[in-house]
Amino acid sequence: MRLNQGLVFLSDSRTNAGVDQVGTFRKMTVFEHPGDRMLVMMTAGNLSISQAIRQIVAEHVDSDGRSIWNVTSMYDAARIVGDAVRTVHQREAKALAACGIDFNVSIILGGQIGAERCRLFQVYSAGNFIESHDENTYFQIGEAKYGKPIIDRVINPATSLDEAAKCALISMDSTLRSNISVGLPLDLLVYETERLAVTRFVTIDEKNQYFRMIRDTWGQQLKQVFEGIVDPVWNAAPETMLNVLSSTNMNSKPVRVAIPEHAGRGGLAVTPLQSLAQQFGSGEQH
Amino acid sequence: MRLNQGLVFLSDSRTNAGVDQVGTFRKMTVFEHPGDRMLVMMTAGNLSISQAIRQIVAEHVDSDGRSIWNVTSMYDAARIVGDAVRTVHQREAKALAACGIDFNVSIILGGQIGAERCRLFQVYSAGNFIESHDENTYFQIGEAKYGKPIIDRVINPATSLDEAAKCALISMDSTLRSNISVGLPLDLLVYETERLAVTRFVTIDEKNQYFRMIRDTWGQQLKQVFEGIVDPVWNAAPETMLNVLSSTNMNSKPVRVAIPEHAGRGGLAVTPLQSLAQQFGSGEQH
Repeated sequence: MRLNQGLVFLSDSRTNAGVDQVGTFRKMTVFEHPGDRMLVMMTAGNLSISQAIRQIVAEHVDSDGRSIWNVTSMYDAARIVGDAVRTVHQREAKALAACGIDFNVSIILGGQIGAERCRLFQVYSAGNFIESHDENTYFQIGEAKYGKPIIDRVINPATSLDEAAKCALISMDSTLRSNISVGLPLDLLVYETERLAVTRFVTIDEKNQYFRMIRDTWGQQLKQVFEGIVDPVWNAAPETMLNVLSSTNMNSKPVRVAIPEHAGRGGLAVTPLQSLAQQFGSGEQH
Repeated sequence: MRLNQGLVFLSDSRTNAGVDQVGTFRKMTVFEHPGDRMLVMMTAGNLSISQAIRQIVAEHVDSDGRSIWNVTSMYDAARIVGDAVRTVHQREAKALAACGIDFNVSIILGGQIGAERCRLFQVYSAGNFIESHDENTYFQIGEAKYGKPIIDRVINPATSLDEAAKCALISMDSTLRSNISVGLPLDLLVYETERLAVTRFVTIDEKNQYFRMIRDTWGQQLKQVFEGIVDPVWNAAPETMLNVLSSTNMNSKPVRVAIPEHAGRGGLAVTPLQSLAQQFGSGEQH
């Protein structure tokens, strides 16, 4: 997440190559030269590809002498990461494809270099990348969908770093509960703008007191809010104004299939039905 | 969802073949013979496949004279749906594959036949199927991930039908907000066990009063709960007991890449670093 006050990074550490081969690998890497630059790279997808990319990003110096350690902008740093993705692709993709394995990796790169502002990028498998702006203030990679709704609801550029970290943890809690391929411990790094060094970092395991409090409180209060929302009113009189899910003058009908002649097993009285042909007239392809 | 009191079905109506070709098609179909049987089928995936399957399910009578209209158990009804999937596969899959289109369809079938209990099935693209039991009291097809966490948190077999309908709507609201491929109107059908007819049905559009109330209230109260959770305490003293995210005696460190010799641009003092080799020793493939 990219906020006005800085950046928040959160990653899990579960990897799996089939459910019987689950491992713990940390997916967040810090490139830090205190006072000069602080960059964080997080990876999702194939772990061997991720590690190969990280190795190249850390060590590579191009023919112009440029490296992650001396470029003067985050944009150039993102290009270095993109080039590393392409280098690994050239080296590995063919052999992987021969074993039926996709070249699958996504990367988030964020940080600050010198006097430049904080910037956040997402790098794709093809080595191309996009940058986060105020309208889209965060990126997610890996199992992103479960945890997206809460971020969409609460995060904007003005959110404080502590609130954003809290939101990231709640989002991850939802993901952890619903998807077994995501697992503890978590790496949480909060970067305050212009510090040019890691300011706050913690590895969160199942014993972490704050994360346990969040897990308990969030689930419990969500249930309370849920219970506090009134049940729907069905088939309300037309003058009813509150909590009306359906009213007697609404007349909405499901798509019913007409019972064919030959199927009148019971011989029960049947009301007139809407046929499929009445409902589906369009010939466009979907 | 399958509850002790009955069944709850909710579907959206957005289909798309690329973002520039979006349509509204209802994905829920009712096979109802009042007093004898009430079955609901919902589909996700390729729309032409879904409609072809529905047509066959509605009309097909096998060589033993069995059809969706006269089988005596939901299990047999699920077999009829599975057979219809296979019939359409045989007819269409080769031509679709030639155009690079997967044979992609998922189906939920639920209902009640005669004196049998309410049953709920999920049918796969291969025509095989699974049944819901108390440990897994719901199925989702299509864009399922966004809305899963809230269902996981509140639904169990004892949940009332109204509460379950409410939960389904909240879950769908989260999905609608986070994914553009899901759209209004929604079809909501609530079936009370042993009625053997559609008891409650409503098509929900953006004007529906109850759904609007849910959208407003849920988002707003979620934010309130979010704001009510205290911010984390960083670098707490060892004796601090509450809301501790990290404490001074925790000593967790990010994976830092050592700055290579050649990259000392700034010449700033650097603290000792943990190397990649220390962190990643395993040779297993992930």
